[in-house]
Amino acid sequence: MAAVAVLRAFGARGPICLRRGPWAQLSARFCSRDPAGAGRQESEPRPTSARQLDGIRNIVLSNPKKRNALSLATLKSLQSDILHDADSNDLKVIIISAEGPVFSSGHDLKELTEEQGRDYHAEVFQTCSKVMMLIRNHPVPVIAMVNGLATAAGCQLVASCDIAVASDKSSFATPGVNIGLFCSTPGVALARAVPRKVALEMLFTGEPISAQQALLHGLLSKVVPEAELQEETMRIARKIASLSRPVVSLGKATFYKQLPQDLGTAYYLTSQAMVDNLALRDGQEGITAFLQKRKPIWSHEPLA
Amino acid sequence: MAAVAVLRAFGARGPICLRRGPWAQLSARFCSRDPAGAGRQESEPRPTSARQLDGIRNIVLSNPKKRNALSLATLKSLQSDILHDADSNDLKVIIISAEGPVFSSGHDLKELTEEQGRDYHAEVFQTCSKVMMLIRNHPVPVIAMVNGLATAAGCQLVASCDIAVASDKSSFATPGVNIGLFCSTPGVALARAVPRKVALEMLFTGEPISAQQALLHGLLSKVVPEAELQEETMRIARKIASLSRPVVSLGKATFYKQLPQDLGTAYYLTSQAMVDNLALRDGQEGITAFLQKRKPIWSHEPLA
Amino acid sequence: MAAVAVLRAFGARGPICLRRGPWAQLSARFCSRDPAGAGRQESEPRPTSARQLDGIRNIVLSNPKKRNALSLATLKSLQSDILHDADSNDLKVIIISAEGPVFSSGHDLKELTEEQGRDYHAEVFQTCSKVMMLIRNHPVPVIAMVNGLATAAGCQLVASCDIAVASDKSSFATPGVNIGLFCSTPGVALARAVPRKVALEMLFTGEPISAQQALLHGLLSKVVPEAELQEETMRIARKIASLSRPVVSLGKATFYKQLPQDLGTAYYLTSQAMVDNLALRDGQEGITAFLQKRKPIWSHEPLA
Repeated sequence: MAAVAVLRAFGARGPICLRRGPWAQLSARFCSRDPAGAGRQESEPRPTSARQLDGIRNIVLSNPKKRNALSLATLKSLQSDILHDADSNDLKVIIISAEGPVFSSGHDLKELTEEQGRDYHAEVFQTCSKVMMLIRNHPVPVIAMVNGLATAAGCQLVASCDIAVASDKSSFATPGVNIGLFCSTPGVALARAVPRKVALEMLFTGEPISAQQALLHGLLSKVVPEAELQEETMRIARKIASLSRPVVSLGKATFYKQLPQDLGTAYYLTSQAMVDNLALRDGQEGITAFLQKRKPIWSHEPLA
Repeated sequence: MAAVAVLRAFGARGPICLRRGPWAQLSARFCSRDPAGAGRQESEPRPTSARQLDGIRNIVLSNPKKRNALSLATLKSLQSDILHDADSNDLKVIIISAEGPVFSSGHDLKELTEEQGRDYHAEVFQTCSKVMMLIRNHPVPVIAMVNGLATAAGCQLVASCDIAVASDKSSFATPGVNIGLFCSTPGVALARAVPRKVALEMLFTGEPISAQQALLHGLLSKVVPEAELQEETMRIARKIASLSRPVVSLGKATFYKQLPQDLGTAYYLTSQAMVDNLALRDGQEGITAFLQKRKPIWSHEPLA
Repeated sequence: MAAVAVLRAFGARGPICLRRGPWAQLSARFCSRDPAGAGRQESEPRPTSARQLDGIRNIVLSNPKKRNALSLATLKSLQSDILHDADSNDLKVIIISAEGPVFSSGHDLKELTEEQGRDYHAEVFQTCSKVMMLIRNHPVPVIAMVNGLATAAGCQLVASCDIAVASDKSSFATPGVNIGLFCSTPGVALARAVPRKVALEMLFTGEPISAQQALLHGLLSKVVPEAELQEETMRIARKIASLSRPVVSLGKATFYKQLPQDLGTAYYLTSQAMVDNLALRDGQEGITAFLQKRKPIWSHEPLA
């Protein structure tokens, strides 16, 4: 299946999503925050945690003391939690949220000093880029649930998700320029989410925008009061989890594939995808159920 | 003339816009809803109707009982009505509207069952894509006037028009995912109209957005109370109909040509278009009239 | 340095930004409106003026009697004022504003008559395009400060700046179609700032949009009451002027470089730019200062 090849390219080694191989160990610690997980030597708790129920995986940035900084270890932990069992039909949608008042403050600046050296810096940014592209290339939708401040690569993470729901107290900034490190990689995701003039003012001044402004300009899908954040996000996630996974998966992949194309090519690609979608067992089940005025029963069977 | 070649590529056979040939028959039924029109064997009324006055053509989706579904017959009828006399100076602008409370519910699902087969499915989506691209490649501006619900390919049709005016009771959705058919082709037009996060939430959840949200995010040009919809749309149409057709036509073609280009190429193409525009008789007439403080008198003469 | 090569391609002759050569004379009249400046034979005042203080250059369209029309002479004067000492560390940010109630009415129509001829027309549009691209390729951010009406190429100028702040009484239009000259070149900048449907309604009808609408749709970064326009613009400019110039400069160039690329290429380019940024003396100074909880002291030293 194509998704496997794609995910493999993002650094998953060995047989993906099988209960044996390297994933087995990840599996063992999955849904827990066991510090003795998958090849970790240190006794530090993992910087992310994950649990999964009814097709919805919730990945939590869980290092609030460090403002959920996206250190190399955090990025790799996040990558593992996203990649884990990616091809399993048990997974329908991923939510990324955070503990504490800061969603994420971006890269860990201690990893970007001269002492760490150029090669280490390169590894940090390449890993971060991989995680952002993994979200786009993942077979299921990824939702950011934001309750607080998201800055620099933290803002990039929100911009990179397919859907983003935030509480009205949240805010967003790319303040790297203040400390002499222009937010060029966050700018990639930001520039693809908001108008150019909004992105450039954020990047040149480092000043934050409110959740409402972020919604207005396209960085967020929805803004709700803090008390409703979890329920609204879960409502969207449950809706997606109730759909046919291969249909959603084909749709997501096709969306991003056609996005950069000229109109003719985009319609060529998507017309083919529509025909393929109709050839899916769930494609026919959905239409039959609709015409018979009953609820569809999804098989989640992939394209033959 | 270039427009003819473009339109021919969109399926117009024979001499375009001449009163003889296949168009003659269409002409005969044009401005009526004569069921005995151009090669139709059945006694069903045409699924679209069209009338033209003072340069403004109004094409109406006129099958409200079937929620103006874009069946293959409807798509072909729409295509004919759009293509008809496309190169005539009598045509200055097209309005697409609909009868009944649903603007259009998208494809006719009965045409997408397994029994119809893969080739038929392909024809449906290819014809639909052709109509959407025809709107963009047409020499005159096309305005959607929406009063009600526009879903799936119906939403795509609105997104594909150059301008869209809607009543405040209208709403827009891409709900295919609910019946196992992801709105991948509507996603092409949607993704080019609204921010990515808005498009993806609509595509993944199938939930509708209001006219106000659609305006906010760029899917619509204008929202007005239902009582003012016709007048506001006609006001825009009359304005366009009062302009020089070759100037508008060159401008529209140039706009879409430069859109996907890098900045340097875009300016190269448009600088040339400006010079060509000034070489048009109406280009000089407009400037002369302005300098002489009088109203211009358009010849509508195409570029030599 | 790369910026020099870029700027040279935009028409700067001789050694750029040196106190000798053609710039010396410009320098001599710089910060004044001396009519006897740099090779000007006529006794007319220059159509733009410029002054610079604390790293902030303010270029003013100063021909309000002619509604600050972008005549060829004005465009060249603007180009000179933008290019002047572009590579000097004394320059951190540029503000473009205007005298009088009209920011700019666009091209001077007297220059676009048949008598002037095709070659002259071509020179006008090519020069205008050069100025717009120069703004994007300039090493420092360029802010439009708008207080009034900006139409046609005047609207294009606003759309082309990196940041745009406007008073709430400002408005924006591309009305060329009314005088038989479709705003195709302004459409390039407009289409890259606002949604397609907004751009097309403006281009096809020629009708103005308010400052609030312009903000909503992404043409502006910020709208303030007229009384606060100068202070808010200066606040943003002072903020940018307080930053490290090579960091801002690398960030701006990288932003526009990645913008048209696919996601993978964009992240490849920007990851490299982040590593280069960290290798800048100011990159390390900023991080060190942050970790030491003190204010950074910028050297403004370019990349070795």
